[in-house]
Amino acid sequence: MASFGFRPLDEKFLIEYIKATPSLSSKLGNQLDDLKIKEVGDGNLNFVFIVVGSAGSVVIKQALPYIRCIGESWPMTKERAYFEQRALIEHGRLCPDHVPEVYHFDRDMSLIGMRYLEPPHIILRKGLIAGIEYPLLAEHVSEYIARTLFCTSLIYRSTTEHKRAVAEFCGNVELCRLTEQVVFSDPYKVSQYNRCTSPYLDRDAEAVREDNILKLEVAELKSMFCERAQALIHGDLHTGSIMVTHDSTQVIDPEFAFYGPMGFDVGAFLGNLILAFFAQDGHVDQGNDRKTYKEWILRTIEETWNLFHKKFTALWDEHKNGPGEAYLPAIYNNPELQQLIQKKFMIDLFHDTLGFGAAKMIRRIVGVAHVEDFESITDASKRAACERQALEMAKMLLKERRKFHAITEVVSAIRQIHSQSS
Amino acid sequence: MASFGFRPLDEKFLIEYIKATPSLSSKLGNQLDDLKIKEVGDGNLNFVFIVVGSAGSVVIKQALPYIRCIGESWPMTKERAYFEQRALIEHGRLCPDHVPEVYHFDRDMSLIGMRYLEPPHIILRKGLIAGIEYPLLAEHVSEYIARTLFCTSLIYRSTTEHKRAVAEFCGNVELCRLTEQVVFSDPYKVSQYNRCTSPYLDRDAEAVREDNILKLEVAELKSMFCERAQALIHGDLHTGSIMVTHDSTQVIDPEFAFYGPMGFDVGAFLGNLILAFFAQDGHVDQGNDRKTYKEWILRTIEETWNLFHKKFTALWDEHKNGPGEAYLPAIYNNPELQQLIQKKFMIDLFHDTLGFGAAKMIRRIVGVAHVEDFESITDASKRAACERQALEMAKMLLKERRKFHAITEVVSAIRQIHSQSS
Ligand SMILES: Nc1ncnc2c1ncn2[C@@H]1O[C@H](COP(=O)(O)OP(=O)(O)O)[C@@H](O)[C@H]1O
Ligand SMILES: Nc1ncnc2c1ncn2[C@@H]1O[C@H](COP(=O)(O)OP(=O)(O)O)[C@@H](O)[C@H]1O
Ligand SMILES: [Mg+2]
Ligand SMILES: [Mg+2]
Ligand SMILES: [Mg+2]
Ligand SMILES: [Mg+2]
Ligand SMILES: [Mg+2]
Repeated sequence: MASFGFRPLDEKFLIEYIKATPSLSSKLGNQLDDLKIKEVGDGNLNFVFIVVGSAGSVVIKQALPYIRCIGESWPMTKERAYFEQRALIEHGRLCPDHVPEVYHFDRDMSLIGMRYLEPPHIILRKGLIAGIEYPLLAEHVSEYIARTLFCTSLIYRSTTEHKRAVAEFCGNVELCRLTEQVVFSDPYKVSQYNRCTSPYLDRDAEAVREDNILKLEVAELKSMFCERAQALIHGDLHTGSIMVTHDSTQVIDPEFAFYGPMGFDVGAFLGNLILAFFAQDGHVDQGNDRKTYKEWILRTIEETWNLFHKKFTALWDEHKNGPGEAYLPAIYNNPELQQLIQKKFMIDLFHDTLGFGAAKMIRRIVGVAHVEDFESITDASKRAACERQALEMAKMLLKERRKFHAITEVVSAIRQIHSQSS
Repeated sequence: MASFGFRPLDEKFLIEYIKATPSLSSKLGNQLDDLKIKEVGDGNLNFVFIVVGSAGSVVIKQALPYIRCIGESWPMTKERAYFEQRALIEHGRLCPDHVPEVYHFDRDMSLIGMRYLEPPHIILRKGLIAGIEYPLLAEHVSEYIARTLFCTSLIYRSTTEHKRAVAEFCGNVELCRLTEQVVFSDPYKVSQYNRCTSPYLDRDAEAVREDNILKLEVAELKSMFCERAQALIHGDLHTGSIMVTHDSTQVIDPEFAFYGPMGFDVGAFLGNLILAFFAQDGHVDQGNDRKTYKEWILRTIEETWNLFHKKFTALWDEHKNGPGEAYLPAIYNNPELQQLIQKKFMIDLFHDTLGFGAAKMIRRIVGVAHVEDFESITDASKRAACERQALEMAKMLLKERRKFHAITEVVSAIRQIHSQSS
């Protein structure tokens, strides 16, 4: 279509745009006369339109040059849509079963057209709040993280490809800075943006700001986040960036994508499951004590890591004679050494995962953006009690992560903190 | 001047080129009639012409699209001259006393015009072989590494500046790959390029290739080299990249520059001093037992690290309220925490330094490019004995680096290995 330059979408203009854009209108079977359009952007940053016609559907996501939930007072480059689209395509190529297809991209408009994840797809976080089990979740998410992280790392790729891609994603610096601020900085200092369940958690938030060891550890993670171009990470892989049904798991919203540490993605997912776990007591009602559900969450945490470990090392074994330049076959192709190398790699990644996961938990309790898992607990004292357990778990995990050697030990620690406080 | 496109220099063309280039001819006082030109490229990669006239002098360095010491059979982008010039200018801005001024750059010609480091400047490595003490060496080199590494890191800079610079230097990928190959890969596998003092060190070279723990450790360092954009490093900071007189210390030849781990530069320098130490017994003659000189080298190793530590942390203290984004003052400005953070940072950097330094030593003994320190020892059995001590030291350092807590412990280990074998 002819370029419109940038213009924020409204319904009328959206229809006009679709009519002028064959890659979109064809997905609607070219039946454009009674389209149903709904803006559903419940996310924090962007506008999302669901467009359903009689012969097809699309989702249109548009980035505006500020952060939606805050407004024009917090400017943010709309170029993030470019990086989101790049990551959707790259991750989609590596893991098509778990990433929605991109139909169209318009850089001037910061506009992505993609597959509509039709009902009964819902945001995983909402499913976790509702107490719904997803028997394939661990299988699917582990598949997504194993494939996307492995295949964009130097274990699989040449340095030449890697550096070219790293350089390109350096362009997504504004989104990286947002993470640096809201995950690694604001929670550890006084900031106008921080919130917590007050007055209950005021002292706990203050304790975070006064904990030297915690601040020492979070500095190390922040440096790793800023400096270590290990793989093309999603960058925002919480349970609000995953849409699910009983059988399907789809990862959306990689606008924070860049070359960063793998543990940031793995930790984001596991950390948000741990938050979901500690929120469950707030969702108990007469019909459901959530006991079984809590066990399912713990099992899912365990299985996700274990399956990820298995899939990642299987990919490694499969491609050990490939073009990846980190571990050349002429050096590392003796089985004993190969095992040593993998073991060391996976334990380091495990510790990174726990550290980043913990940092992501902390920021959801004392930072700017909270999670619906807790926010939907209306009784503030009950909410604070849940949050306090999660915070305690996260602080311990961040400080003591190197003492953990298996995911079962993490699950035991979750149980212990939970039982002590219940 | 009008662009010539690319053309390899010869004397005649060089004079023509200078005549057409005001930034160069002016440095020669526009007296171009009886220039003395000498090609002195004793380095491995490029051509270096010294141009001296009656009223001034310049050095002209040109990169050709292959590696000089190997020939056209090993192609290498001549774009390396661009990155060398970028680094000379950036590091020169940060540390003008120890970097030659750049007068002119021509990207098409891959040609750098810079200050001629006039006699008595010689390459430090040659001074170390000759047994000459440089009383200001530790002071000057520590100044150079402290300033260039600190000021191009996130402790001093914003993420935005950092990512822009990281992206640009990703373009120097071919030189990074050369390092990956010759430092981190070839010595640990059979390669047509490897050499060693045969037959004496054949078994030692084989032992390197069969040492699983060594290969495990070198893999970790290689990943750090490839992934960690900590600062704009020189990338080739051995004693052949430093020119010295009694009072002056000048760092040349940063064509391998990119955003990498700081320890790679610090380690390159210290590792090459350790090589120089172990080579001394091969340079003993009737007039000089080199005992005093060996002590001076050990003192210089110790002082370089200690002064670097002091200068780096002093810069940090000085700029702790500056725009650097790694450690925000609002989080880290309590003195106790500031000390904790610095201590952790410096010990991690110390371990990286020992690891990279050791890797650089190993590759000079069993890899493709050897050092004159050893090569100039004509008696092969004597040379092998020196090299074997250095190799033993390096292997131990690479594997046990995390057990060292102070540079004095490293110096003690050097003494111990040296006395055991002498
Ligand atoms: N492809 C899609 N299909 C169906 N719903 C979607 C799709 N993409 C986004 N959504 C809905 O829009 C919401 C916001 O989308 P998201 O990509 O997370 O935007 P933001 O970047 O603003 O967080 C999601 O939570 C989801 O409800
Ligand atoms: N600015 C200079 N002044 C004097 N001599 C120089 C200068 N630059 C290089 N040289 C001489 O040329 C040699 C090769 O230069 P170098 O930059 O190290 O090239 P290469 O990249 O090929 O190693 C140096 O060892 C030194 O003897
Ligand atoms: Mg979202
Ligand atoms: Mg988003
Ligand atoms: Mg050189
Ligand atoms: Mg060079
Ligand atoms: Mg030079």
